[in-house]
Amino acid sequence: MFISFEGIDGSGKSTQARMLADALREAGHDVVLTREPGGSPGAEEIRRLVLEGDPDRWSAETEILLFTAARRDHLERVIEPALASGKVVICDRFADSTRMYQGLSRGDLRAVVDQLHSLMIKREPDLTILIDIDPATGLSRAKGRQGTEERFEDFGLGLQEKMRAGFLALSKEFAPRFRVIDGARDPQRVAQDVLETVQAELPG
Amino acid sequence: MFISFEGIDGSGKSTQARMLADALREAGHDVVLTREPGGSPGAEEIRRLVLEGDPDRWSAETEILLFTAARRDHLERVIEPALASGKVVICDRFADSTRMYQGLSRGDLRAVVDQLHSLMIKREPDLTILIDIDPATGLSRAKGRQGTEERFEDFGLGLQEKMRAGFLALSKEFAPRFRVIDGARDPQRVAQDVLETVQAELPG
Repeated sequence: MFISFEGIDGSGKSTQARMLADALREAGHDVVLTREPGGSPGAEEIRRLVLEGDPDRWSAETEILLFTAARRDHLERVIEPALASGKVVICDRFADSTRMYQGLSRGDLRAVVDQLHSLMIKREPDLTILIDIDPATGLSRAKGRQGTEERFEDFGLGLQEKMRAGFLALSKEFAPRFRVIDGARDPQRVAQDVLETVQAELPG
Repeated sequence: MFISFEGIDGSGKSTQARMLADALREAGHDVVLTREPGGSPGAEEIRRLVLEGDPDRWSAETEILLFTAARRDHLERVIEPALASGKVVICDRFADSTRMYQGLSRGDLRAVVDQLHSLMIKREPDLTILIDIDPATGLSRAKGRQGTEERFEDFGLGLQEKMRAGFLALSKEFAPRFRVIDGARDPQRVAQDVLETVQAELPG
C-alpha cells in the first residue's frame, strides 16, 4: 500500500508520517518512510540542483521537468520495489504537492504537470492523507520552532491560505483516495485518527 | 536562423559547426555557437549529473527527463534570446540526437521522446545539417586522435552503423529541414558545401 501525506507548512504532516510509520511497524508491517522531493540518492541530487542557488535559476517549466525526473527515479528505485515486496510505503509529499505549488504559481502549468505525470509517472498513491490546518493556527503553534516562523513570513499568511485552499480543492478532485484530517489538535489525537483511517484501508 | 549539426562519432560535425560559425562571422553575421547536451550554465550542470558516475545510475526514462530539462533551459536562456535578437544560432547536436540514441536503445522510447518534445520543447531547428560518414572511414580517419579510437571500440562499429542508419532515417522523416552532406572528404571541401547550403537558406 502506497500512502502519501500532504499539507501546508506547520500542518504537522511530517510528524504524522513518522508517527504512522512507527505505529504500523509496531503492528508488524514492513514500512518504508520516504519523502519528496528526493527519496532516492539520484532524486536527492536533483533536489539539491533545484533548491540550491538563485531562486530564478530555473524556469517553472525546467523545474517541473527536474522534479518529474526526481520522482521517476524515486519511484523506480524506492517506491515500486518496496511495494512489489509487499511493504507499506509512506511518502511525505508526492505529486499533489507539485500540482498544488505549480498550479498556484501559474495556473496554466497545472495542465503541463498533469500531462508529464500521465506520460512519465502514471502512479498515484492508494491513499493520500491531507493534514488540514488553518495557517494562522499552524503559525501560532509553530512559533518558537526554529526557522519555521521566517519561512511563514517569507511566503506570507495569504499564500499559505491559498495553498490550503489548493490542497482542499485537490482532495475533492481526487476524492476517492483523499482523506482530510483536522491537524489543529493534539498530535497524538491526530495520529490516532490517521492510524484508524489507514487501518480501515489496509488489506488483510 | 537556428541550425543544428548531427552525425556519428568521427563524422567531423563539431569541426564543421565551428567552421560554419567562423565563415558566417566573416560574412558579417552575428553567430552563437553552442552545443548539447549542455549549452547554458544550468544545462551544463544537468549534463554533468547525467554523464558522470555509474552508467546505470539513471534509467532511460529519467535520463530523457533530465536531457529534456537541460534542453528547455538551454532553449530559454541561450537559443531563444539569440534568435529573438536576430542572431544565427549553430548548435552541435539537438533533439534529433535524443531521438536517435533513445530510439536505438529501446524502440518504445521514441514515442516518449516525441511526446516530451511536443509538450516541453516544441521548437525544431530551421535547418539540420547531417554530416554523413561511413563509420569505418570515420574510424580510420580518427585513428591517432586521442581518445577517439577507444570510444569507437567501446560502442562497436556495428552500433555506429545503426546510429548512421538512425540519422539517415530521421533525415527522411524530417526531410524539409534536413540536408545530408558527405563527410568523407577533405574538411575544407565539406565546409564549402555546408556554407553554400546554409547561404541558400539564409534570409536577406
